[in-house]
Amino acid sequence: MKSQIEDILKRVHSGVLRPHEAMKLLQDYPYQDLDFAKIDHHRELRKGFPEVIYGLGKTDDQIIKIARAIVNKGSSLLVTRIEAGTYAKLRKAVPGTQYNKSGKIAFLKKRPAAPGQGKIFILTAGTSDMPVAEESFVTAEMLGNDVERAYDVGVAGLHRILGEYDRVKDARVIITCAGMEGALPSVVAGLFSVPVIAVPTSVGYGASFKGVAALLAMLNSCPGGVGVVNIDNGFGAAYLASLINHL
Amino acid sequence: MKSQIEDILKRVHSGVLRPHEAMKLLQDYPYQDLDFAKIDHHRELRKGFPEVIYGLGKTDDQIIKIARAIVNKGSSLLVTRIEAGTYAKLRKAVPGTQYNKSGKIAFLKKRPAAPGQGKIFILTAGTSDMPVAEESFVTAEMLGNDVERAYDVGVAGLHRILGEYDRVKDARVIITCAGMEGALPSVVAGLFSVPVIAVPTSVGYGASFKGVAALLAMLNSCPGGVGVVNIDNGFGAAYLASLINHL
Amino acid sequence: MKSQIEDILKRVHSGVLRPHEAMKLLQDYPYQDLDFAKIDHHRELRKGFPEVIYGLGKTDDQIIKIARAIVNKGSSLLVTRIEAGTYAKLRKAVPGTQYNKSGKIAFLKKRPAAPGQGKIFILTAGTSDMPVAEESFVTAEMLGNDVERAYDVGVAGLHRILGEYDRVKDARVIITCAGMEGALPSVVAGLFSVPVIAVPTSVGYGASFKGVAALLAMLNSCPGGVGVVNIDNGFGAAYLASLINHL
Amino acid sequence: MKSQIEDILKRVHSGVLRPHEAMKLLQDYPYQDLDFAKIDHHRELRKGFPEVIYGLGKTDDQIIKIARAIVNKGSSLLVTRIEAGTYAKLRKAVPGTQYNKSGKIAFLKKRPAAPGQGKIFILTAGTSDMPVAEESFVTAEMLGNDVERAYDVGVAGLHRILGEYDRVKDARVIITCAGMEGALPSVVAGLFSVPVIAVPTSVGYGASFKGVAALLAMLNSCPGGVGVVNIDNGFGAAYLASLINHL
Amino acid sequence: MKSQIEDILKRVHSGVLRPHEAMKLLQDYPYQDLDFAKIDHHRELRKGFPEVIYGLGKTDDQIIKIARAIVNKGSSLLVTRIEAGTYAKLRKAVPGTQYNKSGKIAFLKKRPAAPGQGKIFILTAGTSDMPVAEESFVTAEMLGNDVERAYDVGVAGLHRILGEYDRVKDARVIITCAGMEGALPSVVAGLFSVPVIAVPTSVGYGASFKGVAALLAMLNSCPGGVGVVNIDNGFGAAYLASLINHL
Amino acid sequence: MKSQIEDILKRVHSGVLRPHEAMKLLQDYPYQDLDFAKIDHHRELRKGFPEVIYGLGKTDDQIIKIARAIVNKGSSLLVTRIEAGTYAKLRKAVPGTQYNKSGKIAFLKKRPAAPGQGKIFILTAGTSDMPVAEESFVTAEMLGNDVERAYDVGVAGLHRILGEYDRVKDARVIITCAGMEGALPSVVAGLFSVPVIAVPTSVGYGASFKGVAALLAMLNSCPGGVGVVNIDNGFGAAYLASLINHL
Amino acid sequence: MKSQIEDILKRVHSGVLRPHEAMKLLQDYPYQDLDFAKIDHHRELRKGFPEVIYGLGKTDDQIIKIARAIVNKGSSLLVTRIEAGTYAKLRKAVPGTQYNKSGKIAFLKKRPAAPGQGKIFILTAGTSDMPVAEESFVTAEMLGNDVERAYDVGVAGLHRILGEYDRVKDARVIITCAGMEGALPSVVAGLFSVPVIAVPTSVGYGASFKGVAALLAMLNSCPGGVGVVNIDNGFGAAYLASLINHL
Amino acid sequence: MKSQIEDILKRVHSGVLRPHEAMKLLQDYPYQDLDFAKIDHHRELRKGFPEVIYGLGKTDDQIIKIARAIVNKGSSLLVTRIEAGTYAKLRKAVPGTQYNKSGKIAFLKKRPAAPGQGKIFILTAGTSDMPVAEESFVTAEMLGNDVERAYDVGVAGLHRILGEYDRVKDARVIITCAGMEGALPSVVAGLFSVPVIAVPTSVGYGASFKGVAALLAMLNSCPGGVGVVNIDNGFGAAYLASLINHL
Repeated sequence: MKSQIEDILKRVHSGVLRPHEAMKLLQDYPYQDLDFAKIDHHRELRKGFPEVIYGLGKTDDQIIKIARAIVNKGSSLLVTRIEAGTYAKLRKAVPGTQYNKSGKIAFLKKRPAAPGQGKIFILTAGTSDMPVAEESFVTAEMLGNDVERAYDVGVAGLHRILGEYDRVKDARVIITCAGMEGALPSVVAGLFSVPVIAVPTSVGYGASFKGVAALLAMLNSCPGGVGVVNIDNGFGAAYLASLINHL
Repeated sequence: MKSQIEDILKRVHSGVLRPHEAMKLLQDYPYQDLDFAKIDHHRELRKGFPEVIYGLGKTDDQIIKIARAIVNKGSSLLVTRIEAGTYAKLRKAVPGTQYNKSGKIAFLKKRPAAPGQGKIFILTAGTSDMPVAEESFVTAEMLGNDVERAYDVGVAGLHRILGEYDRVKDARVIITCAGMEGALPSVVAGLFSVPVIAVPTSVGYGASFKGVAALLAMLNSCPGGVGVVNIDNGFGAAYLASLINHL
Repeated sequence: MKSQIEDILKRVHSGVLRPHEAMKLLQDYPYQDLDFAKIDHHRELRKGFPEVIYGLGKTDDQIIKIARAIVNKGSSLLVTRIEAGTYAKLRKAVPGTQYNKSGKIAFLKKRPAAPGQGKIFILTAGTSDMPVAEESFVTAEMLGNDVERAYDVGVAGLHRILGEYDRVKDARVIITCAGMEGALPSVVAGLFSVPVIAVPTSVGYGASFKGVAALLAMLNSCPGGVGVVNIDNGFGAAYLASLINHL
Repeated sequence: MKSQIEDILKRVHSGVLRPHEAMKLLQDYPYQDLDFAKIDHHRELRKGFPEVIYGLGKTDDQIIKIARAIVNKGSSLLVTRIEAGTYAKLRKAVPGTQYNKSGKIAFLKKRPAAPGQGKIFILTAGTSDMPVAEESFVTAEMLGNDVERAYDVGVAGLHRILGEYDRVKDARVIITCAGMEGALPSVVAGLFSVPVIAVPTSVGYGASFKGVAALLAMLNSCPGGVGVVNIDNGFGAAYLASLINHL
Repeated sequence: MKSQIEDILKRVHSGVLRPHEAMKLLQDYPYQDLDFAKIDHHRELRKGFPEVIYGLGKTDDQIIKIARAIVNKGSSLLVTRIEAGTYAKLRKAVPGTQYNKSGKIAFLKKRPAAPGQGKIFILTAGTSDMPVAEESFVTAEMLGNDVERAYDVGVAGLHRILGEYDRVKDARVIITCAGMEGALPSVVAGLFSVPVIAVPTSVGYGASFKGVAALLAMLNSCPGGVGVVNIDNGFGAAYLASLINHL
Repeated sequence: MKSQIEDILKRVHSGVLRPHEAMKLLQDYPYQDLDFAKIDHHRELRKGFPEVIYGLGKTDDQIIKIARAIVNKGSSLLVTRIEAGTYAKLRKAVPGTQYNKSGKIAFLKKRPAAPGQGKIFILTAGTSDMPVAEESFVTAEMLGNDVERAYDVGVAGLHRILGEYDRVKDARVIITCAGMEGALPSVVAGLFSVPVIAVPTSVGYGASFKGVAALLAMLNSCPGGVGVVNIDNGFGAAYLASLINHL
Repeated sequence: MKSQIEDILKRVHSGVLRPHEAMKLLQDYPYQDLDFAKIDHHRELRKGFPEVIYGLGKTDDQIIKIARAIVNKGSSLLVTRIEAGTYAKLRKAVPGTQYNKSGKIAFLKKRPAAPGQGKIFILTAGTSDMPVAEESFVTAEMLGNDVERAYDVGVAGLHRILGEYDRVKDARVIITCAGMEGALPSVVAGLFSVPVIAVPTSVGYGASFKGVAALLAMLNSCPGGVGVVNIDNGFGAAYLASLINHL
Repeated sequence: MKSQIEDILKRVHSGVLRPHEAMKLLQDYPYQDLDFAKIDHHRELRKGFPEVIYGLGKTDDQIIKIARAIVNKGSSLLVTRIEAGTYAKLRKAVPGTQYNKSGKIAFLKKRPAAPGQGKIFILTAGTSDMPVAEESFVTAEMLGNDVERAYDVGVAGLHRILGEYDRVKDARVIITCAGMEGALPSVVAGLFSVPVIAVPTSVGYGASFKGVAALLAMLNSCPGGVGVVNIDNGFGAAYLASLINHL
């Protein structure tokens, strides 16, 4: 943002811009105001990927309007937490949009994202963690990464994660999705020497408290190298992993 | 209340009223008893606005009976947390009643409220916080205030709140609605020198715990000048803002 | 902050200032960097009162260095959450500094603060809430307000708060400090028509959970007009009350 | 229970009963085993009222079987937490059974319960607390008590509870139902000198945490004389009140 | 309180009192204002026992001042949560004051309290619950009750509570103090037909969460007839038990 | 697992196996990879029972595919937390599969499990705990144990558990399922000298917090010999009991 | 307990005992009443080991009196949670008593306990879990078991637990003590086929919440065969393990 | 670890190693067993840095023994959470060891760590967050990174973080330490496009719940790119940042 301020300052100094015009620029430039939402089209330049629509709590109508505004700028589209019914409407409004049913995530690739440096590997402790992992998968792919997956490799049967050792050891970042006791990131961070993004999932019942048990376990992970994101936040994990993979 | 006691005491002293009549007065005067509800018609005199109906947990029938009793006294009507279905019935019972669908709030202006001293500004961090903000908006307007809004100006993109600086800086009170990390009031209270009412919203998932994360953040807001209300309590924020704006 | 940006932009435009000098100004101007702390001397202009030192978690040495830097600019000094031992050292370093033992707050008035519009009234439910109330009292006085107090007027004996009715009814803002069930703000907001700042205190035991019971009660306060601050945050309550009282 | 042991011991001593028969008696006597439930028919003798059916978590079929077993012994029937649909089936199986829709409680008086010593008074803070209060009301009446009610007398408008002073002051026990900040029992216990049973209700939203705020407030009630029951436990409050009223 | 209002109204009506004098009376009469505390001397008439001093959070000086004010009126003295060191000072200021070391409660009987109707029985689950039980014991005796005790009768060895059956069965009210799993009130309320006051204690470690486990267990007590007070609130339990015992 | 490593090492040493073949074996042997799930067919050898399908969070299609893979190996089938609708589909895919409606558990015995040493006894506090107990019952039977049940023997009526004394006293392990105050395991562990597996159930309302109250009570159980499993985890309790019963 | 009832009933029937004498016996027999404690000397017969003294919350004097009463009966002594200072006094009162400083547990073997069937193995995740493990160790040894230990074998370095495979695989029961993420029991229960007792420890900081993170992880342990005890409850784990080992 | 297995397998195949010798190797090789601790000397090869000693919960004697064992292998030493008193002893045992008093971390550089790719920047919201930041600083430096710091740049005064823009924008990873409302990472992740490691600190009071408020805020951080570690876990943040910086 500051570089913009500097640019504007320079233009003011050179006489191209008057102060009050500069003020306007600073305020009006960076986003498109839809009244209920301010779309940050500038973000693609700044961050390498356009704004992502977080679907939860938005009406169908709002999602579609924001999606159109993004696609109209020629940007790629990513909508997380979107139900199948809303997707059906969205597909009509923005033809070509695809949908990952398990991950409840809609996407449309318009411009190829900058490619990552290495491979992101997504692991789940169980089959039930799959929806979160799929949200991560679609997100990471859309952000330009090479992604691999191995599901149902929880610590109750160590041979499963050991059996994936060869594939995982070449990853540049590992995403681990686990509910219940959330022990997978601890074991994975002990086995491998790359950053591990831990995603607690709401899989479990009773004293799992919808992912709290896994969240706490991950925050207390004994081996170093584990960064935690919110419960079920497959998107956030992939976004962080992609940032690391693009360094 | 005490001034009433004093009035009554004076009338007793002057012989106009007997003691046991005075007791009756003290007990019976201030509200109309509908058995399941005691309507405080006296409130408009005391507080400047008639009793507001909190819709949650009341049956349709109860809401309509209370609404009628209020309107029959010539008072304005405000019903919060009312579903569209209930509103449809209410509109038939009390013609002219309007409805803000996003804010789930019904209203009917009968008497103009006393005008506020300045402007109340309502900010939201995201689009999903809109229902809470709309409850604030309708309430504040009904209470006689001049109200402005800017939605989706969360701290993830500082340029958005900076872009609204000019409009906001003239406000007498600011209401900020934010879920997730609830950081907006901290940034706003740092930028402006007026009271900031912080409304945590239940927007978010996982470790947002339905607004608890935002609530705690707001209670721990580092800059001074922030008063917090209950999660999703758009009405309460507007009521407090209006009190301040009418000083 | 924006007005500063505008000023700087104007000076750039008029040729007085070069862009890179402007960038420096924007960055260096507003605070004095002590390495472990950045003191916002500009704050007094912007907010009407210099930066307040929050003593908790700071070493004696840090507190004294910041205090000296503030006083050296001719500003008034306010240090909250400071133990008697630290105060003893501070008084030597900054002669004239006074101390409110109950409120654990040190202060030195250098410049008179702008006077408030009306009276701030501080109420406590019990005697044990006094330390929090005294922090409020000293803060509010230092911020230029006319302050009155009535302690031990909790709802278990309604006659006590009713007995203070006359004194309280003229206040422009009311601060209520209560632990345990935290019911005082609900009753006070029902009796009076001015903004009520509710401060939950950590007074109580067992299921008071160090003020959580009172905090929740206050957030759920039924009558409108209540803004809540953090547990034991007497300073924050006074700061907000003062903002309102200076409108 | 011990008196039974003593009786049995005496009969063994007198030769009427053999030891192994005594063992059987001790085990088999007190309840009727329906496999999924053990009905304590003996309870009416011991406690003055037959076993009450807690409907939650029981299938319709189980409720009806237990109800029939109770009524077949000539005992009165009380079923709490029973949905309207289940009641419809129950009424067919056990004709004459009545239903309080608000309190979701079914009942059939077969034998008059022993009358209480005085009056039980039920107060609610708001209209929304009515379902809990009605559960209390039906229970207390079925247990033989003289019961009065005053609803919507919360502390936000003190004149409402003061207005009921005369009716309430003759009660032997008071039941107070309140959600949100749960302040009613504190004020009531300050005004009256009889035992106050406090029932937190799940009325409220956000930081009321489904009655936790009210529960904590009530447990921390400052004035003495308040006993608390579980959230929404209208039945339990009435049962305890009735025990006290029958002393 | 209302009877006072009525009296005052009558005196006003009869000309003995002028309105503004009546207002003064209503405000000044009921308590003695020590600035940091308002002592309710009138309470003894209204409630049958003078105000009790809750020691926690009060300075030694404050406790002594309030104690003197109470004793000077000829009232009995009860100070809860008072450390041995403070008691030593209090005994000098108010000679004759006694101290129960385990219950940390000081007392001085000046006037005999009205005698209760029956016996209050205090049970503890373990030896470690004794301090809470002793607070109950001293309080109940001071309030005029006949009190008996049986300690260490927890449910892990049922024969212990059964062994006290004969003594307990004649009680009019039972107080049960238990930490850890807090199961004693459930078993006791199943065995006896009188009101059971349940006091969760902070005895335990780990997942007892300083009494929360016991508190929750007691609130969920299956048999009817259990009223719960705050964790470690031996005083409150005795106060409620005494109210019931004086009916 | 280590014995497998040793075997493989021996075969490598004897020349039967090459190193890289050994690596493959270690990785590929123990499970069948269905992409979304890794089925541990080896488990039956290692643990005495094939993998159990935890139904929650799996799609119908996933459950059926895993079930087929298990049955195709000639192993017995156990599916927990499976809704009636899913079972209907499963029965078509895997004929002969049975269903316990209360326990929501599907099963098909293919190979007899190794018989346990003694009897497992399952107790519930109330009728509403039955679904959890039935999950335990089916699981324990499928794992080769002799199982007995007694339901509705909670501590509110001690005669009920005492009445089952003779049947229970011969058990080798006892499973106790209880919600609400969760006191049953404490009483049972005091009466009997065998391991007690405590299963908190989500039965209750309000401050039971969906089984948390019972969970905490059980973790704080005073008498020794109690091991706790997750809330509503009837399967886990039976699995642990079976392990003990097979020693 | 029931067998005693039966014996007493038989003696009554045969004329040896009169009913009221029988009642006395039932009440007085099983424990020695020290007023503040009821010592269950009968327990050694019933349970195979005398009553254990839980030191927390008992005064030094109480501990010594109970210890003497136990030793005077010729029973072995075990005192948990006893500080070094108290032990010093106890050793004088009961010569020969030993002390495990890390586990804070005092013991004196008077009578050899019945030997267990196999080996109990105690594992800890880290060095800091040692105090809890030592409490388990002393307890298990005193209860007659053959016990082995391996400390600091947490899942962050899988080779450590794999390195102990040979020693652990012969155990009949395994106790695992772990704080932080508490993942050790999940991995251990996946590797071995015997019952695993999981002890969460309060080792950790921040979001470990004094053992809550580990507790939740253990309750959600994915592989079957894990029973959980209270946080830091080394004694309870050993007691349960010993019960299983003596089957 | 697997590469070691493969090596060992190859040596077995070539006849250099016998199977039982191989088993020994697999078990004994990787760590040095000090009985109370297993030191992973192999870690430096595998992870690039020797084992770090977590000081909390270890006795002085244990810390010194482990430190000696590490230094004796020629490895660098890092001891976190070590009090000044313990450090004084450690310095005598391991001369040359240094100490960062604020960060409570001891260190001795023996071998230079591999240098990172870029710069790690550490930001704190306030002065009180300094101890956590210093733990991060020493750790990151010891792990071979170029580290810069800017303290007291919280969001209450945006100009402070904006003033550091130029220095921060070149960082490869940013560590943000913040207590109270924990809003700093959200603003930082919005301004910069590199991974942000968020460390909640226990700075604050009341409803900060020792860092929980900040932790929740950070987990709910709206802008992507934030990974969270445990409360006050400066070490973990630096370790993860270093892993990323060494990619």
